[in-house]
Amino acid sequence: MVRDTGGSMLCGVIYGALTKYAHPATERGLENSRTVLAELADKAAESNIRLGLEFCNRYETNVINTTHDTLEFISQIGRDNVMAHLDTYHMNIEEYSMAGAVKEAAAAGRLGYVHVGESHRGQLGTGSINWEEFLGALKEVDYDGVVTFESFSSKVVHPTFSNDLAIWRNLWDDNVELAAGARRFLRERLGV
Amino acid sequence: MVRDTGGSMLCGVIYGALTKYAHPATERGLENSRTVLAELADKAAESNIRLGLEFCNRYETNVINTTHDTLEFISQIGRDNVMAHLDTYHMNIEEYSMAGAVKEAAAAGRLGYVHVGESHRGQLGTGSINWEEFLGALKEVDYDGVVTFESFSSKVVHPTFSNDLAIWRNLWDDNVELAAGARRFLRERLGV
Repeated sequence: MVRDTGGSMLCGVIYGALTKYAHPATERGLENSRTVLAELADKAAESNIRLGLEFCNRYETNVINTTHDTLEFISQIGRDNVMAHLDTYHMNIEEYSMAGAVKEAAAAGRLGYVHVGESHRGQLGTGSINWEEFLGALKEVDYDGVVTFESFSSKVVHPTFSNDLAIWRNLWDDNVELAAGARRFLRERLGV
Repeated sequence: MVRDTGGSMLCGVIYGALTKYAHPATERGLENSRTVLAELADKAAESNIRLGLEFCNRYETNVINTTHDTLEFISQIGRDNVMAHLDTYHMNIEEYSMAGAVKEAAAAGRLGYVHVGESHRGQLGTGSINWEEFLGALKEVDYDGVVTFESFSSKVVHPTFSNDLAIWRNLWDDNVELAAGARRFLRERLGV
Protein backbone atom coordinates (compact mmCIF):
# COMPACT_ATOMS: atom_id res chain seq x y z
CA MET A 1 0.00 0.00 0.00
CA VAL A 2 2.84 2.44 0.78
CA ARG A 3 4.45 1.60 -2.58
CA ASP A 4 1.20 1.88 -4.50
CA THR A 5 0.38 5.27 -3.02
CA GLY A 6 3.84 6.58 -3.92
CA GLY A 7 5.13 6.60 -0.36
CA SER A 8 8.74 6.19 0.70
CA MET A 9 8.35 5.56 4.42
CA LEU A 10 6.20 3.47 6.76
CA CYS A 11 6.41 4.61 10.34
CA GLY A 12 4.67 4.65 13.70
CA VAL A 13 4.10 1.91 16.26
CA ILE A 14 4.74 -0.95 13.82
CA TYR A 15 6.75 -3.05 16.30
CA GLY A 16 4.07 -3.91 18.86
CA ALA A 17 0.57 -3.33 20.16
CA LEU A 18 -0.34 0.22 21.23
CA THR A 19 -1.56 -0.59 24.73
CA LYS A 20 -0.74 -0.39 28.43
CA TYR A 21 1.02 -3.66 29.19
CA ALA A 22 0.68 -5.50 32.50
CA HIS A 23 4.29 -6.71 32.60
CA PRO A 24 7.71 -5.96 31.08
CA ALA A 25 8.39 -7.21 27.54
CA THR A 26 9.60 -10.80 27.36
CA GLU A 27 12.71 -11.82 25.42
CA ARG A 28 10.52 -13.98 23.20
CA GLY A 29 8.21 -11.04 22.47
CA LEU A 30 11.13 -8.76 21.61
CA GLU A 31 12.69 -11.39 19.34
CA ASN A 32 9.37 -11.93 17.59
CA SER A 33 9.06 -8.20 16.95
CA ARG A 34 12.61 -7.95 15.59
CA THR A 35 12.14 -10.98 13.32
CA VAL A 36 8.92 -9.65 11.81
CA LEU A 37 10.42 -6.19 11.32
CA ALA A 38 13.49 -7.65 9.55
CA GLU A 39 11.21 -9.46 7.10
CA LEU A 40 9.11 -6.33 6.61
CA ALA A 41 12.26 -4.23 6.09
CA ASP A 42 13.50 -6.60 3.37
CA LYS A 43 10.12 -6.44 1.64
CA ALA A 44 10.09 -2.64 1.94
CA ALA A 45 13.64 -2.35 0.57
CA GLU A 46 12.48 -3.88 -2.71
CA SER A 47 10.45 -0.68 -3.24
CA ASN A 48 12.99 1.74 -1.71
CA ILE A 49 10.78 2.18 1.32
CA ARG A 50 12.18 2.86 4.78
CA LEU A 51 10.61 1.86 8.08
CA GLY A 52 10.44 4.25 11.04
CA LEU A 53 10.07 2.87 14.57
CA GLU A 54 8.24 5.40 16.74
CA PHE A 55 9.08 4.65 20.34
CA CYS A 56 6.29 5.63 22.72
CA ASN A 57 6.00 6.32 26.43
CA ARG A 58 5.77 3.51 28.99
CA TYR A 59 1.97 3.52 29.02
CA GLU A 60 1.71 2.75 25.30
CA THR A 61 4.43 0.15 24.82
CA ASN A 62 6.91 -1.94 26.81
CA VAL A 63 9.13 -2.63 23.75
CA ILE A 64 11.02 0.67 23.17
CA ASN A 65 10.62 3.86 25.22
CA THR A 66 13.74 5.90 24.44
CA THR A 67 15.92 6.88 21.49
CA HIS A 68 18.81 4.90 22.92
CA ASP A 69 16.78 1.71 23.27
CA THR A 70 15.29 2.21 19.80
CA LEU A 71 18.75 2.52 18.24
CA GLU A 72 19.83 -0.69 19.99
CA PHE A 73 16.66 -2.44 18.80
CA ILE A 74 17.33 -1.22 15.23
CA SER A 75 20.91 -2.45 15.46
CA GLN A 76 19.65 -5.88 16.47
CA ILE A 77 17.25 -5.94 13.51
CA GLY A 78 20.27 -5.33 11.30
CA ARG A 79 18.69 -3.69 8.26
CA ASP A 80 19.86 -0.42 6.67
CA ASN A 81 16.35 0.86 5.96
CA VAL A 82 15.03 0.80 9.54
CA MET A 83 15.11 4.24 11.18
CA ALA A 84 14.30 5.80 14.55
CA HIS A 85 11.16 7.91 14.62
CA LEU A 86 11.35 10.52 17.41
CA ASP A 87 8.25 12.08 19.01
CA THR A 88 8.64 14.94 21.50
CA TYR A 89 5.48 14.01 23.43
CA HIS A 90 6.94 10.64 24.38
CA MET A 91 10.49 11.97 24.75
CA ASN A 92 9.26 14.49 27.35
CA ILE A 93 8.29 11.57 29.57
CA GLU A 94 11.17 9.19 28.85
CA GLU A 95 14.43 10.89 27.83
CA TYR A 96 17.29 12.19 29.94
CA SER A 97 17.97 14.85 27.30
CA MET A 98 15.95 15.97 24.26
CA ALA A 99 19.01 17.36 22.46
CA GLY A 100 21.16 14.40 23.45
CA ALA A 101 18.60 12.00 21.96
CA VAL A 102 18.46 13.86 18.64
CA LYS A 103 22.25 13.90 18.42
CA GLU A 104 22.57 10.22 19.29
CA ALA A 105 20.08 9.23 16.58
CA ALA A 106 21.76 11.50 14.01
CA ALA A 107 25.24 10.22 14.90
CA ALA A 108 24.00 6.67 14.31
CA GLY A 109 22.65 7.73 10.90
CA ARG A 110 19.18 6.64 11.98
CA LEU A 111 17.22 9.88 12.51
CA GLY A 112 14.43 9.05 10.09
CA TYR A 113 11.26 10.87 11.11
CA VAL A 114 10.08 13.43 13.65
CA HIS A 115 6.77 14.01 15.39
CA VAL A 116 6.35 17.25 17.30
CA GLY A 117 3.69 17.08 19.97
CA GLU A 118 3.23 19.21 23.09
CA SER A 119 3.48 17.64 26.57
CA HIS A 120 -0.33 17.61 27.01
CA ARG A 121 -0.95 16.83 23.30
CA GLY A 122 -2.45 20.30 22.68
CA GLN A 123 -1.03 23.33 20.83
CA LEU A 124 2.74 23.69 20.48
CA GLY A 125 4.34 26.12 22.90
CA THR A 126 1.64 25.86 25.57
CA GLY A 127 3.09 23.04 27.68
CA SER A 128 6.32 21.66 29.19
CA ILE A 129 8.40 20.88 26.08
CA ASN A 130 11.66 22.79 25.77
CA TRP A 131 11.26 23.68 22.08
CA GLU A 132 14.42 25.74 21.86
CA GLU A 133 16.43 22.71 22.93
CA PHE A 134 14.70 20.17 20.68
CA LEU A 135 14.35 22.26 17.51
CA GLY A 136 17.83 23.69 18.06
CA ALA A 137 19.21 20.13 18.07
CA LEU A 138 17.37 19.32 14.81
CA LYS A 139 19.04 22.33 13.20
CA GLU A 140 22.41 21.46 14.69
CA VAL A 141 22.39 17.98 13.13
CA ASP A 142 21.06 19.40 9.81
CA TYR A 143 17.95 17.23 9.91
CA ASP A 144 16.16 17.75 6.59
CA GLY A 145 13.40 15.14 6.89
CA VAL A 146 9.72 15.43 7.68
CA VAL A 147 8.50 17.17 10.87
CA THR A 148 4.86 16.23 11.53
CA PHE A 149 2.69 17.96 14.13
CA GLU A 150 0.47 15.68 16.23
CA SER A 151 -2.34 16.76 18.53
CA PHE A 152 -5.43 14.96 19.73
CA SER A 153 -8.92 16.01 20.76
CA SER A 154 -11.88 13.68 21.00
CA LYS A 155 -13.77 16.32 19.01
CA VAL A 156 -12.17 15.06 15.80
CA VAL A 157 -10.52 11.77 16.74
CA HIS A 158 -12.48 8.50 16.60
CA PRO A 159 -13.67 7.48 20.12
CA THR A 160 -11.82 4.14 20.03
CA PHE A 161 -8.46 5.74 19.18
CA SER A 162 -9.16 8.67 21.50
CA ASN A 163 -9.74 6.24 24.39
CA ASP A 164 -6.63 4.21 23.48
CA LEU A 165 -4.62 7.45 23.75
CA ALA A 166 -6.34 8.42 27.04
CA ILE A 167 -7.70 11.73 25.75
CA TRP A 168 -10.07 12.67 28.59
CA ARG A 169 -10.34 16.39 28.00
CA ASN A 170 -10.38 18.45 24.83
CA LEU A 171 -7.70 21.10 24.56
CA TRP A 172 -9.13 22.51 21.31
CA ASP A 173 -12.20 22.39 19.08
CA ASP A 174 -11.03 23.97 15.83
CA ASN A 175 -8.51 21.77 14.03
CA VAL A 176 -7.83 24.24 11.21
CA GLU A 177 -6.96 27.02 13.65
CA LEU A 178 -4.80 24.55 15.59
CA ALA A 179 -2.91 23.40 12.50
CA ALA A 180 -2.32 26.96 11.28
CA GLY A 181 -0.97 27.95 14.71
CA ALA A 182 1.35 24.94 14.82
CA ARG A 183 2.59 25.72 11.30
CA ARG A 184 3.42 29.30 12.32
CA PHE A 185 5.15 28.06 15.49
CA LEU A 186 7.42 25.71 13.53
CA ARG A 187 8.06 28.16 10.68
CA GLU A 188 9.26 30.81 13.12
CA ARG A 189 11.58 28.43 14.94
CA LEU A 190 12.89 26.22 12.14
CA GLY A 191 13.07 28.99 9.58
CA VAL A 192 11.51 26.88 6.83
CA MET B 1 -5.25 4.01 60.92
CA VAL B 2 -3.98 7.53 60.08
CA ARG B 3 -5.31 8.77 63.44
CA ASP B 4 -3.90 5.85 65.39
CA THR B 5 -0.44 6.26 63.90
CA GLY B 6 -0.43 9.98 64.74
CA GLY B 7 -0.89 11.16 61.17
CA SER B 8 -2.56 14.38 60.09
CA MET B 9 -3.04 13.75 56.40
CA LEU B 10 -4.25 10.97 54.09
CA CYS B 11 -3.28 11.57 50.49
CA GLY B 12 -2.65 9.91 47.15
CA VAL B 13 -5.02 8.38 44.62
CA ILE B 14 -7.92 7.99 47.07
CA TYR B 15 -10.61 9.11 44.60
CA GLY B 16 -10.49 6.28 42.05
CA ALA B 17 -8.71 3.21 40.76
CA LEU B 18 -5.09 3.60 39.68
CA THR B 19 -5.42 2.15 36.19
CA LYS B 20 -5.55 2.97 32.48
CA TYR B 21 -9.24 3.44 31.75
CA ALA B 22 -10.84 2.44 28.44
CA HIS B 23 -13.24 5.41 28.34
CA PRO B 24 -13.75 8.89 29.84
CA ALA B 25 -15.15 9.10 33.39
CA THR B 26 -18.92 8.96 33.56
CA GLU B 27 -20.96 11.54 35.51
CA ARG B 28 -22.21 8.74 37.76
CA GLY B 29 -18.65 7.62 38.47
CA LEU B 30 -17.54 11.16 39.30
CA GLU B 31 -20.52 11.71 41.59
CA ASN B 32 -19.85 8.43 43.36
CA SER B 33 -16.24 9.45 43.97
CA ARG B 34 -17.27 12.88 45.32
CA THR B 35 -19.91 11.38 47.63
CA VAL B 36 -17.52 8.84 49.14
CA LEU B 37 -14.80 11.50 49.58
CA ALA B 38 -17.24 13.85 51.37
CA GLU B 39 -18.12 11.09 53.83
CA LEU B 40 -14.44 10.25 54.32
CA ALA B 41 -13.60 13.95 54.79
CA ASP B 42 -16.22 14.28 57.53
CA LYS B 43 -14.87 11.20 59.28
CA ALA B 44 -11.29 12.51 58.94
CA ALA B 45 -12.27 15.94 60.28
CA GLU B 46 -13.27 14.34 63.59
CA SER B 47 -9.56 13.59 64.09
CA ASN B 48 -8.21 16.80 62.53
CA ILE B 49 -7.03 14.86 59.51
CA ARG B 50 -6.91 16.39 56.05
CA LEU B 51 -7.33 14.54 52.75
CA GLY B 52 -5.05 15.21 49.77
CA LEU B 53 -6.22 14.33 46.26
CA GLU B 54 -3.24 13.49 44.08
CA PHE B 55 -4.24 13.98 40.48
CA CYS B 56 -2.37 11.70 38.11
CA ASN B 57 -1.65 11.66 34.41
CA ARG B 58 -4.21 10.41 31.87
CA TYR B 59 -2.84 6.86 31.87
CA GLU B 60 -3.45 6.37 35.59
CA THR B 61 -6.85 8.02 36.06
CA ASN B 62 -9.67 9.59 34.08
CA VAL B 63 -11.09 11.43 37.12
CA ILE B 64 -8.69 14.37 37.68
CA ASN B 65 -5.56 15.11 35.61
CA THR B 66 -4.76 18.76 36.36
CA THR B 67 -4.59 21.16 39.29
CA HIS B 68 -7.47 23.17 37.86
CA ASP B 69 -9.74 20.13 37.55
CA THR B 70 -8.72 18.95 41.03
CA LEU B 71 -9.66 22.31 42.56
CA GLU B 72 -13.04 22.16 40.83
CA PHE B 73 -13.54 18.59 42.05
CA ILE B 74 -12.64 19.67 45.60
CA SER B 75 -15.05 22.59 45.36
CA GLN B 76 -17.82 20.18 44.40
CA ILE B 77 -17.00 17.93 47.37
CA GLY B 78 -17.49 21.00 49.54
CA ARG B 79 -15.38 20.14 52.58
CA ASP B 80 -12.73 22.39 54.14
CA ASN B 81 -10.29 19.58 54.87
CA VAL B 82 -9.88 18.27 51.29
CA MET B 83 -6.72 19.57 49.63
CA ALA B 84 -4.98 19.34 46.25
CA HIS B 85 -1.90 17.14 46.17
CA LEU B 86 0.45 18.22 43.35
CA ASP B 87 2.99 15.86 41.76
CA THR B 88 5.51 17.22 39.25
CA TYR B 89 5.74 13.91 37.35
CA HIS B 90 2.07 14.07 36.41
CA MET B 91 2.07 17.86 36.01
CA ASN B 92 4.85 17.58 33.41
CA ILE B 93 2.44 15.62 31.21
CA GLU B 94 -0.79 17.47 31.93
CA GLU B 95 -0.36 21.14 32.92
CA TYR B 96 -0.15 24.25 30.77
CA SER B 97 2.10 25.85 33.39
CA MET B 98 3.87 24.39 36.42
CA ALA B 99 4.11 27.74 38.22
CA GLY B 100 0.57 28.72 37.24
CA ALA B 101 -0.76 25.49 38.74
CA VAL B 102 1.06 26.03 42.06
CA LYS B 103 -0.24 29.60 42.27
CA GLU B 104 -3.81 28.57 41.42
CA ALA B 105 -3.85 25.93 44.17
CA ALA B 106 -2.30 28.32 46.70
CA ALA B 107 -4.72 31.12 45.81
CA ALA B 108 -7.60 28.71 46.42
CA GLY B 109 -6.11 27.85 49.83
CA ARG B 110 -5.91 24.20 48.77
CA LEU B 111 -2.20 23.51 48.24
CA GLY B 112 -1.97 20.64 50.69
CA TYR B 113 0.84 18.31 49.67
CA VAL B 114 3.65 18.09 47.11
CA HIS B 115 5.35 15.17 45.38
CA VAL B 116 8.51 15.92 43.45
CA GLY B 117 9.26 13.35 40.77
CA GLU B 118 11.41 13.66 37.66
CA SER B 119 9.84 13.29 34.19
CA HIS B 120 11.16 9.71 33.77
CA ARG B 121 10.68 8.89 37.48
CA GLY B 122 14.45 8.74 38.08
CA GLN B 123 16.79 11.14 39.89
CA LEU B 124 15.79 14.80 40.23
CA GLY B 125 17.48 17.14 37.78
CA THR B 126 18.18 14.49 35.12
CA GLY B 127 15.02 14.83 33.03
CA SER B 128 12.58 17.35 31.51
CA ILE B 129 11.12 19.04 34.61
CA ASN B 130 11.76 22.78 34.89
CA TRP B 131 12.74 22.76 38.57
CA GLU B 132 13.57 26.43 38.75
CA GLU B 133 10.00 27.24 37.71
CA PHE B 134 8.27 24.74 39.99
CA LEU B 135 10.36 25.18 43.14
CA GLY B 136 10.46 28.93 42.56
CA ALA B 137 6.66 28.97 42.57
CA LEU B 138 6.57 26.97 45.85
CA LYS B 139 8.80 29.61 47.42
CA GLU B 140 6.78 32.45 45.92
CA VAL B 141 3.55 31.22 47.53
CA ASP B 142 5.37 30.50 50.82
CA TYR B 143 4.45 26.82 50.77
CA ASP B 144 5.57 25.35 54.09
CA GLY B 145 4.11 21.85 53.81
CA VAL B 146 5.68 18.50 53.04
CA VAL B 147 7.72 17.94 49.86
CA THR B 148 8.11 14.21 49.22
CA PHE B 149 10.49 12.77 46.61
CA GLU B 150 9.14 9.87 44.54
CA SER B 151 11.12 7.60 42.24
CA PHE B 152 10.54 4.06 41.08
CA SER B 153 12.73 1.18 40.06
CA SER B 154 11.59 -2.42 39.86
CA LYS B 155 14.77 -3.24 41.83
CA VAL B 156 13.04 -2.17 45.03
CA VAL B 157 9.34 -1.81 44.14
CA HIS B 158 7.00 -4.80 44.30
CA PRO B 159 6.44 -6.28 40.80
CA THR B 160 2.66 -5.72 40.89
CA PHE B 161 2.97 -2.03 41.72
CA SER B 162 5.93 -1.66 39.37
CA ASN B 163 3.86 -3.09 36.52
CA ASP B 164 0.86 -0.89 37.42
CA LEU B 165 3.17 2.13 37.10
CA ALA B 166 4.67 0.83 33.83
CA ILE B 167 8.27 0.74 35.11
CA TRP B 168 9.96 -1.17 32.27
CA ARG B 169 13.56 -0.09 32.82
CA ASN B 170 15.51 0.63 35.99
CA LEU B 171 17.05 4.08 36.21
CA TRP B 172 18.87 3.26 39.44
CA ASP B 173 19.88 0.37 41.70
CA ASP B 174 20.96 2.05 44.94
CA ASN B 175 18.01 3.65 46.74
CA VAL B 176 20.10 5.18 49.54
CA GLU B 177 22.38 6.96 47.06
CA LEU B 178 19.29 8.08 45.13
CA ALA B 179 17.57 9.47 48.22
CA ALA B 180 20.70 11.29 49.41
CA GLY B 181 21.10 12.88 45.97
CA ALA B 182 17.47 14.00 45.88
CA ARG B 183 17.80 15.46 49.38
CA ARG B 184 20.84 17.49 48.31
CA PHE B 185 19.04 18.64 45.16
CA LEU B 186 16.06 19.94 47.13
CA ARG B 187 18.12 21.45 49.95
CA GLU B 188 20.18 23.48 47.47
CA ARG B 189 17.11 24.81 45.67
CA LEU B 190 14.61 25.26 48.47
CA GLY B 191 17.15 26.44 51.02
CA VAL B 192 15.74 24.26 53.77
